Amino acid sequence: MARVSAPDTAASRRGFLKAGLAGGAAFASALVSARAGAAEAGGDPAITEIQDWNRYSGAGVDQSPYGMPSPFEKEAVRRNVPWLTADPVSSVNFTPLHALDGIITPNGLCFERHHAGVAAVDPAEHRLMINGLVEKPLVFTMEDLKRFPRENRIYFLECAANSGMEWRGAQLNGCQFTHGMVHCVMYTGVLLKHVLAEAGLKSSAKWLLAEGADAAAMTRSIPMEKALDDCMIAFAMNGEALRPEQGYPVRLVVPGFEGNMWVKWLRRLEAGDEPWQQREETSKYTDLLANGKARRFTFTMDVKSVITSPSPQAPIAHGKGPLVVSGLAWSGNGVIKRVDVSVDGGRNWTPARIDGPSLPMALHRFYHEFDWDGSELFLQSRAVDEKGFVQPSKDALRAVRGVNSIYHNNGIQTWHVGTDGAVENVEIS
Amino acid sequence: MARVSAPDTAASRRGFLKAGLAGGAAFASALVSARAGAAEAGGDPAITEIQDWNRYSGAGVDQSPYGMPSPFEKEAVRRNVPWLTADPVSSVNFTPLHALDGIITPNGLCFERHHAGVAAVDPAEHRLMINGLVEKPLVFTMEDLKRFPRENRIYFLECAANSGMEWRGAQLNGCQFTHGMVHCVMYTGVLLKHVLAEAGLKSSAKWLLAEGADAAAMTRSIPMEKALDDCMIAFAMNGEALRPEQGYPVRLVVPGFEGNMWVKWLRRLEAGDEPWQQREETSKYTDLLANGKARRFTFTMDVKSVITSPSPQAPIAHGKGPLVVSGLAWSGNGVIKRVDVSVDGGRNWTPARIDGPSLPMALHRFYHEFDWDGSELFLQSRAVDEKGFVQPSKDALRAVRGVNSIYHNNGIQTWHVGTDGAVENVEIS
Repeated sequence: MARVSAPDTAASRRGFLKAGLAGGAAFASALVSARAGAAEAGGDPAITEIQDWNRYSGAGVDQSPYGMPSPFEKEAVRRNVPWLTADPVSSVNFTPLHALDGIITPNGLCFERHHAGVAAVDPAEHRLMINGLVEKPLVFTMEDLKRFPRENRIYFLECAANSGMEWRGAQLNGCQFTHGMVHCVMYTGVLLKHVLAEAGLKSSAKWLLAEGADAAAMTRSIPMEKALDDCMIAFAMNGEALRPEQGYPVRLVVPGFEGNMWVKWLRRLEAGDEPWQQREETSKYTDLLANGKARRFTFTMDVKSVITSPSPQAPIAHGKGPLVVSGLAWSGNGVIKRVDVSVDGGRNWTPARIDGPSLPMALHRFYHEFDWDGSELFLQSRAVDEKGFVQPSKDALRAVRGVNSIYHNNGIQTWHVGTDGAVENVEIS
Repeated sequence: MARVSAPDTAASRRGFLKAGLAGGAAFASALVSARAGAAEAGGDPAITEIQDWNRYSGAGVDQSPYGMPSPFEKEAVRRNVPWLTADPVSSVNFTPLHALDGIITPNGLCFERHHAGVAAVDPAEHRLMINGLVEKPLVFTMEDLKRFPRENRIYFLECAANSGMEWRGAQLNGCQFTHGMVHCVMYTGVLLKHVLAEAGLKSSAKWLLAEGADAAAMTRSIPMEKALDDCMIAFAMNGEALRPEQGYPVRLVVPGFEGNMWVKWLRRLEAGDEPWQQREETSKYTDLLANGKARRFTFTMDVKSVITSPSPQAPIAHGKGPLVVSGLAWSGNGVIKRVDVSVDGGRNWTPARIDGPSLPMALHRFYHEFDWDGSELFLQSRAVDEKGFVQPSKDALRAVRGVNSIYHNNGIQTWHVGTDGAVENVEIS
């Protein structure tokens, strides 16, 4: 091929576009659309016509001091289920997992769960108090907290009630609704142990009460062993200040533990010798078994996975041939060691490819690529974590736990893929 | 400490707040504000009064399908410098590095550089063509591209002109302006080598021309060795679809190389045997030396670092005592092995603490914590990469390259900190 100089190339580009307009079919007949199974391009008007974005200058650098997604991505948003609760200030919306890839959740799409709506906290007025079994009760401003050594860690946060509607059968048609109460960001903050040390924690302190500054004053008891291990007081997510609905200006990070304990708008930490038996750890966030007894303090989020594409909101649009199956896996016990994928409802399993950083208590992205022959599929994924825990079937889970609880459902999810590529939430035995 | 039941604690919380209102000073006198050097809390009204966010429910989960930052963070935005270019569609704005932490840049704050504004591309109409020295010219739709195996990688992207105004002395007062043409996100996409293989790349192909679909048709030559190594065709950043100003729906990722080569709105890849000598690699993006000759094809971004806080836009507000110095380091050669910090303008150096994942060709976050005695400082940071390259002083760089270029300035930055905590961009010899 002859090398052409800059002006020549510009001319050849214009020529290429003109040729398309004049005799597109003939020119484009040499081009075939990529990947086996896809149709030939033919006289593709998109490649042979000059489009508006080639012709006119776009918006300038002064147009969006804080940028937003393309208008073509308007379906990639958080959604709530209006019938779930009486009022949206004590409800939940869902991360659009079907529209995302990789392991980082963008801040604007992290699911929300409030018990009294989003507290609109002024950081200059906000204080964090430490009291109880300490030598020296302390009050911190936000400026004070930023004077401790900082850490940056990527963690998933999952609501204990994620997949809660699935205990009683396949109910919600989309992974956004079945599994979308999870997100994963990089937190910046200070280790809780440094802040507690400043207050002079007494050796008799075995539990820590965390209280939020919202109107619900969300309050949970945390074992001191966990608090002194890896808990953080975080003030940034994905580089910027926490979002209001994620606890701005400061939240607790409790890696691997249920999301409700990651108290937002954190205003008080009290050291004590026993748990406080708050509403949110007795009436709520306990797992009611079939015999009427309840499992309590079930903090760790169990090993879990879900296929995010294809899924009911992300059907197969391209027909048979090469197909990328993409999904997420995570465990409160550490890193994911393995994910298997089945296309026949669990009769046969193939190891999936885990891609990207494998970090403890963070989301893991997996892929399974194969040639789809166009027949129906029953897609499943099954994760195994570093402690050897294996994600169970929904039936195995129900045999042990019954169906009274809405919490801690880590059962294997099944998607039925029809011959037309449409996907449905189903159960198979 | 006696354990109190849930209702008792609720009562005690109310009591605590009432006590504050009734006799705040007396109650709060037992509390001291954290960290040496900070003032005692005294009768801090913020901790003893009920604030609006304790009293009223906030916004519900139906209020922001796509979430935004707190109104209190309105200063954490991209800024352009209106006098830099004649028109904002061929200009730049800057990442607010002084307001960020960790290594991930949120999508809405990634700096923008356009040559013809933000192309508003419809993904359904967009096509990517591969032609030139290939067996089979191909046209890909976005759906086609998503059928190749995907990868997820965290990379920095730095404009070759970042810090360009600093060649001729300390000119811009803020790391947002001196160093803010860099960002770092997780990309999802397909390796370029897979897509080129599909077209049947000929062995005579040594260079690749990448062309954008914007009105500027941004066009750059890339060595084929690099293209077949780690280049990606990316369609997502930090989990979601690329932002319009970052090339939606598809851009090239050229890890460690200057940002101009990461062609946005990617519409064409042409395989050839020599570089094309386009405007953007001859008249622009070459480094004019003192003798009138120019360095060309200076692709790799050299080892570099900057202290982001304290900095001119993030002065020390808390007085003397414990101070956290925070900064970023990066290198197009791989990972950062070491960062040193000086508080006396380079006479003495102390190793900084690198925190968070250390990934090749990604931003690295470093910290240096010390007790500030309130005297003036000349803060500097100096990075060393895995290949042993050491970030040079600005004067050492000028001795070799002169001051004609605006590109590839990786010199050591100096911030002067006054006794009042104010920070200025200065040069010292």
